[in-house]
Amino acid sequence: MHSYRTHTCAALRQEDVGKTVRLSGWIHRKRHHGGVLFVDLRDHYGMTQIVADEDSPALKTLEGLRVESVVTIDGEVKARDAATVNDNLPTGAIEVFARDCTVQSRAEELPLIVNSAEDYPEETRLKYRFVDLRRERVHANIMLRSKVIASIRRRMTEQGFNEIQTPILGASSPEGARDYLVPSRLHPGTFYALPQAPQMFKQLLMVAGFDRYFQIAPCFRDEDLRADRSPEFYQLDLEMSFVTQDDVFAALEPVLAGVFEEFADGKSVTPAGEFPRIPYREAMLRYGSDKPDLRNPLIISDVSDIFAGSDVSMFDSIISAGGVVRAIPAPNTADQARSFFDKMNEWARQEGFAGLAYIRFGEGLDIERRLRAGEVEITDIDGATIASGPIANRLDVERLVQIADRCGLDGKGGVFLAAGKEKDAAKLAGLARTRAAEQLDLIEQGCFKFCWIVDFPMYEYDEEKKTIDFSHNPFSMPQGEMEALEHQDPLDILAWQYDIVCNGYELSSGAIRNHRPDIMYKAFEIAGYGKEAVEKNFGGMLEAFKLGAPPHGGSAPGIDRIVMLLADEPNIREVIAFPMNQRAQDLMMGAPNAADTNQLRELHIRTVEPTRANQAIPEGATKTPGD
Amino acid sequence: MHSYRTHTCAALRQEDVGKTVRLSGWIHRKRHHGGVLFVDLRDHYGMTQIVADEDSPALKTLEGLRVESVVTIDGEVKARDAATVNDNLPTGAIEVFARDCTVQSRAEELPLIVNSAEDYPEETRLKYRFVDLRRERVHANIMLRSKVIASIRRRMTEQGFNEIQTPILGASSPEGARDYLVPSRLHPGTFYALPQAPQMFKQLLMVAGFDRYFQIAPCFRDEDLRADRSPEFYQLDLEMSFVTQDDVFAALEPVLAGVFEEFADGKSVTPAGEFPRIPYREAMLRYGSDKPDLRNPLIISDVSDIFAGSDVSMFDSIISAGGVVRAIPAPNTADQARSFFDKMNEWARQEGFAGLAYIRFGEGLDIERRLRAGEVEITDIDGATIASGPIANRLDVERLVQIADRCGLDGKGGVFLAAGKEKDAAKLAGLARTRAAEQLDLIEQGCFKFCWIVDFPMYEYDEEKKTIDFSHNPFSMPQGEMEALEHQDPLDILAWQYDIVCNGYELSSGAIRNHRPDIMYKAFEIAGYGKEAVEKNFGGMLEAFKLGAPPHGGSAPGIDRIVMLLADEPNIREVIAFPMNQRAQDLMMGAPNAADTNQLRELHIRTVEPTRANQAIPEGATKTPGD
Repeated sequence: MHSYRTHTCAALRQEDVGKTVRLSGWIHRKRHHGGVLFVDLRDHYGMTQIVADEDSPALKTLEGLRVESVVTIDGEVKARDAATVNDNLPTGAIEVFARDCTVQSRAEELPLIVNSAEDYPEETRLKYRFVDLRRERVHANIMLRSKVIASIRRRMTEQGFNEIQTPILGASSPEGARDYLVPSRLHPGTFYALPQAPQMFKQLLMVAGFDRYFQIAPCFRDEDLRADRSPEFYQLDLEMSFVTQDDVFAALEPVLAGVFEEFADGKSVTPAGEFPRIPYREAMLRYGSDKPDLRNPLIISDVSDIFAGSDVSMFDSIISAGGVVRAIPAPNTADQARSFFDKMNEWARQEGFAGLAYIRFGEGLDIERRLRAGEVEITDIDGATIASGPIANRLDVERLVQIADRCGLDGKGGVFLAAGKEKDAAKLAGLARTRAAEQLDLIEQGCFKFCWIVDFPMYEYDEEKKTIDFSHNPFSMPQGEMEALEHQDPLDILAWQYDIVCNGYELSSGAIRNHRPDIMYKAFEIAGYGKEAVEKNFGGMLEAFKLGAPPHGGSAPGIDRIVMLLADEPNIREVIAFPMNQRAQDLMMGAPNAADTNQLRELHIRTVEPTRANQAIPEGATKTPGD
Repeated sequence: MHSYRTHTCAALRQEDVGKTVRLSGWIHRKRHHGGVLFVDLRDHYGMTQIVADEDSPALKTLEGLRVESVVTIDGEVKARDAATVNDNLPTGAIEVFARDCTVQSRAEELPLIVNSAEDYPEETRLKYRFVDLRRERVHANIMLRSKVIASIRRRMTEQGFNEIQTPILGASSPEGARDYLVPSRLHPGTFYALPQAPQMFKQLLMVAGFDRYFQIAPCFRDEDLRADRSPEFYQLDLEMSFVTQDDVFAALEPVLAGVFEEFADGKSVTPAGEFPRIPYREAMLRYGSDKPDLRNPLIISDVSDIFAGSDVSMFDSIISAGGVVRAIPAPNTADQARSFFDKMNEWARQEGFAGLAYIRFGEGLDIERRLRAGEVEITDIDGATIASGPIANRLDVERLVQIADRCGLDGKGGVFLAAGKEKDAAKLAGLARTRAAEQLDLIEQGCFKFCWIVDFPMYEYDEEKKTIDFSHNPFSMPQGEMEALEHQDPLDILAWQYDIVCNGYELSSGAIRNHRPDIMYKAFEIAGYGKEAVEKNFGGMLEAFKLGAPPHGGSAPGIDRIVMLLADEPNIREVIAFPMNQRAQDLMMGAPNAADTNQLRELHIRTVEPTRANQAIPEGATKTPGD
């Protein structure tokens, strides 16, 4: 017989009754019942009920142990009484009568209770992560993560992608977020940097002729932490040669849809091949965001033309100055108190906006419409309110009906109005769309809705510097390539760049890359960079592109974010086995810690006491050229 | 039609003749033949011959391009003449007549030639790795690596192992080789360390209840580099709970044998379940190494008893002083000149040993044996030499026959003799065994021979300090556990520790861990460490083990080494996509490089000019407690 177990704690069933077995695991729970001790024995796989009565020599041993002690039980499988069968447990039809108990590890008093869903301070959970990880939910999250990654790998491999590891000790790059640095011992005064993403390497793999690369790649950013950020994180880094944007989509959609379907636990998933593609400008208009949550049915409309020349002088002057007015519908809000609308306005002010106007439509709206359609006579109008609210009075009936029509509202609904410079109005409209849908409980549950955001503008006008600058990634291929750069208004040029969004979260950006030195020089020239500057900063890539580079493109969906969505966890630390805390410390292992003087001497560095000045250094740029 | 290709360069066959196709790839080779241009077009998948004559508008474009330029060819598939069919190429039955050629990327002059096997300086190859990687052999190595890792993952997953990522930003540990350090921005004066191995984390995963963990884990050691060392390397890190040594072997053998069989390209592989298990002491005796190459048929014997009391006074005095004499057979060396034996002696001296004695046996040996067996009369002895060589004269016939018998030699063979303290003699014997087999061409080719080295001693006697110390890993479980520690001579205690060896290379060490605080305190006490010292240095693990730890064990075979063996490459840099050079520099990306002052200020460090003193710091200890 095996030293520790003949079966796992999830294995035994009715048909095993009568067998002599050996099980090992943790004492999950103990309870006495009429002189009999019941122990839930837990391992990675499941739970089995162990029974010991006074006839069993195991009784005394088990009684003397704390929960979470590890034991090996020798015993006999017995059927449970019909009354005590537990249908919720795979092993619920049986119990094991303990003949003998060997103590493998005696647990001392525990800093947190494993067999409860009680919440503990993060500090306790992280310091004793090895205990915390035994708890059902965290254990399940980490297993989910493992299975999700294995599934992604399988799907990528099946599609002909090859996983290739790129260096973790790399070169620091002037772009992007803050690097983690690693002092070099052999080359005094110099440093390696941990990769923020393997962007350069994956492009060089394409130049090197590896057609379809992927990697579950560890990435590092020394940024201030948030709920969804960890100093180290993983991305499904991928790159393909001789492809158009459509090819990248066709490769990624089955992987993402497949993985989500596999682990969505019954939730619906946008099918592969059917991910909507929403141009950036449309997304900013209709959703007020380039990360639209398509579970939210509310669609924003531009109503600037309706307000132009109206008596709502504030809106009119915004529009005259080049601003816009955006309308967010709030359907079926007839039963909402006025305070619902006023609170939205207050909320907008708290968020730093000037405010959020609103119009509530009344029954009169529908009567007015029937009147216009010739369905009723003017005499039917009985003073029913067409619209109410602070600005409704200043709008004529014509305009009110137009607004309601454009927002698809009837006399039971209302509309919020966000006005200002286009960027600000769009942003407020987007936030209001989310908030209104949340308040009205309109967000569809039980689904993962994917979309691509496409057609990002290549350039934008920098209002402060009064210059044209890159909007997002200078290394994306402009749509129309050289032809477009030479003949189109830069602000009209779109890039072959795309984001993948799920339920309002950006999983990744990506692009078809600019692999042509001539087009790259031209693209930078438009943004005001001369040939020398380009060569100085991006000489390595340029040199590679001059020695035979294929057209290529890719993306890099975030693994942690995918697992967070599937596990329905709002905090990245819940889906990482050994996460750091928000101060970037590993409380369990005590990292970071002091180094000894010899080590530092070997690395040719010395530590410096922080002064006020260098403590106050502001957060650097966080825009990264990579995916 | 797709923008870049309807087929890859490996796809077209006889049955595609007549099709209009589009191919993209690199111009691998160009040649003119009677006014016709032949181009080998290469992509990741293979090669297709493109033909352009004067009727083709593609001719001029192709003529104007350097090799390694990237083009898209539109054309028609034609059958080759019977005389020009190339059976070595999957696409060798056809060629594509080019109607049109689009230039995707114009290559400038290349720093190294892709279509040749010519050797280039490593500096050139690494600086232009993206070109070097296009060359057939390197490309194949990297693809092999990718496939080997995918296969390992599949096999581990099929066996119920779950891959879990452990932190890369970790805590520095006082043990082991030199860490790479990462200064912390948020915690002035402290550092993270990159993991030399995820040893602690994998054990904590077991304590956390994850039964079967694995990870293709990146590991980092800041050591001086050699052909088989890279600052970052990968290991198949694995750990299992509730297992004995047999269980670990049963889990690993199918993975290793399976992967090797899959990629051995016809070479034979020790079948899973049949890996020999060689106790450490036997390995040191029979192979003079704990990394025996079992392809080498030579077996070392101890012949100390035969030399004891002989007239070979040098050996006799070594034996009297507690030393040993080891014999390495050199069968079938009758035709070797005496210089073969003398050169072995010279070689041993060059290696720093006192020398390597030898005996050559002659026909007289066999006659003497037949005489003893009563097969011939004494009169048949015709002065035939029993043995020759500097020390043979001083040995009597009895001893000569005993030596030959023990080494399984007949009158055509010889024997080398290594004498000295046991450790030194074993080492010399081991090296001589390898060298003799190499010189005599005895090493079996076309096979991968695996074995386990088991039963490592827990402790050894430190001659200098006159104390008992741990032999290898203090965290392995002693065989016999507490019972053994309390009652056996420490030098007799064996550990549940094991190495896996293939063709003379150690792929990994591994162990059943000591998970019991009481046994750990006792084990350290024997090596002279008090409870406080143990708690100070290993408090974290001890604390974890006090909160319910399962028996567990594992191993960590080196991925790079496995790929090196399968690719038959002697240098680790041949199986890494973007390796550093031997000075730990990435010549392509320019790492390590200078950091700017702001970055360093944020990290609370300052660089220090090296002085003579700190340049001269000797290499630190390189023993690591992990696998």
